[in-house]
Amino acid sequence: MPSPTLPALIEALRRLPGVGQKTASRMAYHLLQHDREGAQLLAQALQQAASRMRHCALCHTFTEDEVCETCRNPQRDRSKLCVVETPADQAAVERTGAFRGLYFVLMGKLSPLDGIGPKDIGLSTLFERATAGEVQEVILATNFTAEGEATAHVIGEALKARGLKVTRLARGVPAGSELEYVDLGTIAHALVDRR
Amino acid sequence: MPSPTLPALIEALRRLPGVGQKTASRMAYHLLQHDREGAQLLAQALQQAASRMRHCALCHTFTEDEVCETCRNPQRDRSKLCVVETPADQAAVERTGAFRGLYFVLMGKLSPLDGIGPKDIGLSTLFERATAGEVQEVILATNFTAEGEATAHVIGEALKARGLKVTRLARGVPAGSELEYVDLGTIAHALVDRR
Repeated sequence: MPSPTLPALIEALRRLPGVGQKTASRMAYHLLQHDREGAQLLAQALQQAASRMRHCALCHTFTEDEVCETCRNPQRDRSKLCVVETPADQAAVERTGAFRGLYFVLMGKLSPLDGIGPKDIGLSTLFERATAGEVQEVILATNFTAEGEATAHVIGEALKARGLKVTRLARGVPAGSELEYVDLGTIAHALVDRR
Repeated sequence: MPSPTLPALIEALRRLPGVGQKTASRMAYHLLQHDREGAQLLAQALQQAASRMRHCALCHTFTEDEVCETCRNPQRDRSKLCVVETPADQAAVERTGAFRGLYFVLMGKLSPLDGIGPKDIGLSTLFERATAGEVQEVILATNFTAEGEATAHVIGEALKARGLKVTRLARGVPAGSELEYVDLGTIAHALVDRR
């Protein structure tokens, strides 16, 4: 390709997660050939997001303000704090409509192999906030993966040592599933946690 | 998500081909959390490409100039014209280093079901250029798919009717492959086209 603009665009698209050389080329050609308006729109959205978005001073989620809308909302139950890994997880919990408390978004998970320790996920801020007096219960809603479980364990132990009530999302059989096709670990957990 | 900037970014990322809601969210969070520089870079590259790139007046490929570098190059053999579907295909032919002629990039393929007819792939421009006198041979290098073959057939018939020499990329067994694992259609073609 002789022109430098096209390779620059393909190179830039490769910085998106999961996008390699071929996909990046396909995206670039698609935008240039069929969707210039989309390209302009995406450029603008990226520009605005990169310059405006920052982390909420209280819960660490992405926001444009000093404190995010959820944390500012006076109708949220300030005695409950739900700890999640990412804003996407937070959005999933929000969509259920079953939780009216506040959040703390770790923006990651403990992962010593990747060099991600307690400082990188803001655990000291979390502990400070959880023990400030307002919070009565911390709900650990990290993922049920090895790293998520480890993260929940570390946070749970630390907060219990500080005398707080700590709960974890229930493990069990997913809604709508047939036992025959549910993995054994899940059934075993559901048996142990039966109520 | 309370802030409008993030949903706007996710919506914009969904305009990329093959990117749905989940992938777009993952991309947005990745850029905001781990690669703001990449986001700025991508915004700039998109902006520049969308405003600067246009089609070469001669071969229709993407370029920043009136006529692309390949078409301007005095060392290219002007008697040979290679017809390809996309700039990516052109780049693939270029990488072989086996072709020193010029190109005509269709920027698509005949596809009546998608409403893409001869006008949309600039066939009249191609016929004009091929019959202007300089071109001695037109090499059809459209893809070996149903639509690519149909496109090659239509172009080939029209140019032969105008008295031009028209060739098609050879079909046959790919380099490095074992006959046992090559599909029957390919072996049949290789037998017919044996030399």
